[in-house]
Amino acid sequence: MVGPRYTPLVETLPASVPFVGPEAQERARGREFVARLGANENVFGPSPRAIAAMQNAARDAWMYGDPENHDLRAALARHHGVGPENVIVGEGIDGLLGYLARMLLEAEDKVVTSAGAYPTFNYHVAGFGGEIFAIPYQDDAEDPDALLRKAAQVGAKMIYLANPDNPMGSWHQADVIQSMAARVPDSCLLVLDEAYMELAPQGTAPPMDVSNNNVIRMRTFSKAYGMAGARVGYGIGAPDLITSFNKIRNHFGMCRISQAGALAALQDQEYLTEVVSKVATARDRIARISTDNGLIALPSATNFVAIDCGYDGDFARSVLVGLVDRGIFVRAPFVAPQDRCIRISAGTDADLDAFEGALPGVLSEARNKR
Amino acid sequence: MVGPRYTPLVETLPASVPFVGPEAQERARGREFVARLGANENVFGPSPRAIAAMQNAARDAWMYGDPENHDLRAALARHHGVGPENVIVGEGIDGLLGYLARMLLEAEDKVVTSAGAYPTFNYHVAGFGGEIFAIPYQDDAEDPDALLRKAAQVGAKMIYLANPDNPMGSWHQADVIQSMAARVPDSCLLVLDEAYMELAPQGTAPPMDVSNNNVIRMRTFSKAYGMAGARVGYGIGAPDLITSFNKIRNHFGMCRISQAGALAALQDQEYLTEVVSKVATARDRIARISTDNGLIALPSATNFVAIDCGYDGDFARSVLVGLVDRGIFVRAPFVAPQDRCIRISAGTDADLDAFEGALPGVLSEARNKR
Repeated sequence: MVGPRYTPLVETLPASVPFVGPEAQERARGREFVARLGANENVFGPSPRAIAAMQNAARDAWMYGDPENHDLRAALARHHGVGPENVIVGEGIDGLLGYLARMLLEAEDKVVTSAGAYPTFNYHVAGFGGEIFAIPYQDDAEDPDALLRKAAQVGAKMIYLANPDNPMGSWHQADVIQSMAARVPDSCLLVLDEAYMELAPQGTAPPMDVSNNNVIRMRTFSKAYGMAGARVGYGIGAPDLITSFNKIRNHFGMCRISQAGALAALQDQEYLTEVVSKVATARDRIARISTDNGLIALPSATNFVAIDCGYDGDFARSVLVGLVDRGIFVRAPFVAPQDRCIRISAGTDADLDAFEGALPGVLSEARNKR
Repeated sequence: MVGPRYTPLVETLPASVPFVGPEAQERARGREFVARLGANENVFGPSPRAIAAMQNAARDAWMYGDPENHDLRAALARHHGVGPENVIVGEGIDGLLGYLARMLLEAEDKVVTSAGAYPTFNYHVAGFGGEIFAIPYQDDAEDPDALLRKAAQVGAKMIYLANPDNPMGSWHQADVIQSMAARVPDSCLLVLDEAYMELAPQGTAPPMDVSNNNVIRMRTFSKAYGMAGARVGYGIGAPDLITSFNKIRNHFGMCRISQAGALAALQDQEYLTEVVSKVATARDRIARISTDNGLIALPSATNFVAIDCGYDGDFARSVLVGLVDRGIFVRAPFVAPQDRCIRISAGTDADLDAFEGALPGVLSEARNKR
């Protein structure tokens, strides 16, 4: 057979994608979505200062970005009260999860996560041959104690927990997470995905503790900062772990324009506060629309709301298909019993008008099909 | 020992960087460079249409980029007369080289390159445990026949060749490369890095042949298109190889702003032609400055010129240090005998004024030290 020899692992991997993008769905439908509420993007967009910084940086795009991400890391370190040696910047949390999996995992190494949690994490684990143990949600929330128990039992190298959680929007108080962080098995790493933390109530984020070698905290400019398209995520942890990324990462992987945008966005905390408030208002409206339609919106500490459609996964999926058919891009949890829900991102007034207009018809169709 | 368990391979890797960025050097010097001529960036910058597209896209940065890079891949496919299934887009050629190494290499797999060729390729090979065999340059050019012979001898999984070459600027005619591509061992992949191809003379690029399973052609928007900071590279090859990237890549790794910029840049071939001509003028001036100072500029098919400083590597390094001390950022080949040269990127008139002004003093200092 002529052609390159792939590794045995890569030979076995499916050419699967963690998520199909809305653009691919639009191409398949032959028309654009009316409301883009499926990817937990932040429709309120980046700070005007971040936009201006990116527009300026576009002219300078002939220069590579600083491979050390020096200025952004310094600003993030100040912001979080840690040192620059505690901060790694990468191509979104997705990129950092890939690097982490590569740093830690060989074939059959064990990893613990929740059943139905972030599939991109699983994608990267599988991509390095890791074996995933998935713990059921408990009352629609990830279950720290069960995750710890399973990790100890199987000798896991990594535990993944998102706080707040995606796709359910649920969250744990800081003290629960602190207690979990203190009990991570000695040679295990807790990957604490805090992508939505800026949107969570006070008291959700534990203080930063970079003396804990067993935890890395992941943050992003994709959600509250409204810059998903810029691909800027960061991790905070102990210096040894942070330095290890430098052994393997794509040193020149960061877009210079995104570096400039993230720095400016961080410096505009006033705008962030406004956005957080707009998101809360949108969440409240999604809850109201749900109630008006006889559905239950779950509490959320994120920029999306999981709506319990009241029956099983098949019913929720038929609601989802009905919405998508009407041009409302939404997604849904994909593991039972959480798949009884659909997941709606906080939208503009116009987005939510479209959702509100479509929902009654969609529900009545779905109910007729039962 | 408390803390994560790295893979045995990662434990052995140094936290080394293929290149130190000019910003790090500026921070160490305590002042900015006067002329940035070391990283083969394109000072003439992106097309105004690309800048405008990126500035518009900055406002839309709240949306993730299309993970399929559909529009850009379609445009690239048309541009090169291949199908979209033959095109993979990634976070610079660097990003794609990392993915390729991961797809093909396990510990001790053999890889062939030239001694002193692109270090980032070696970095990624080492990062997956590959073993590198480095072939000497022949008359300051990479040596296709010797690379092929070594690959056959050691059973290499990959051969790396850059045409035109970095750091020497030398190049092979299309027929030489075509003949090489036809003779790649059956289970080996020729990674043909054509980062500088748009700047090379007619007759340097072989026709695209996506029926050859043993070759991938790498291109970029970083050089002639002047968008190094945007991180957009692409590979062209057989569908099976291209699809395999989807098994492992960071699907949401591309910056949306960069996607828009690359598409607009591709559509402005007139601007590209202008830039190519400006680069040629700058190369000629660098050659003139070299001659005026008793040095020999090597012929170049790229946006940089390797200048033979006339003695050994120590002498060239002392010229390099002298230039850097005077605020002229340059780099140099690092393997003998190519390290007798320094490498100067095509600059603006002001950049080259600064270089021309500094060079005589630098050379006389270096000569006095001999």
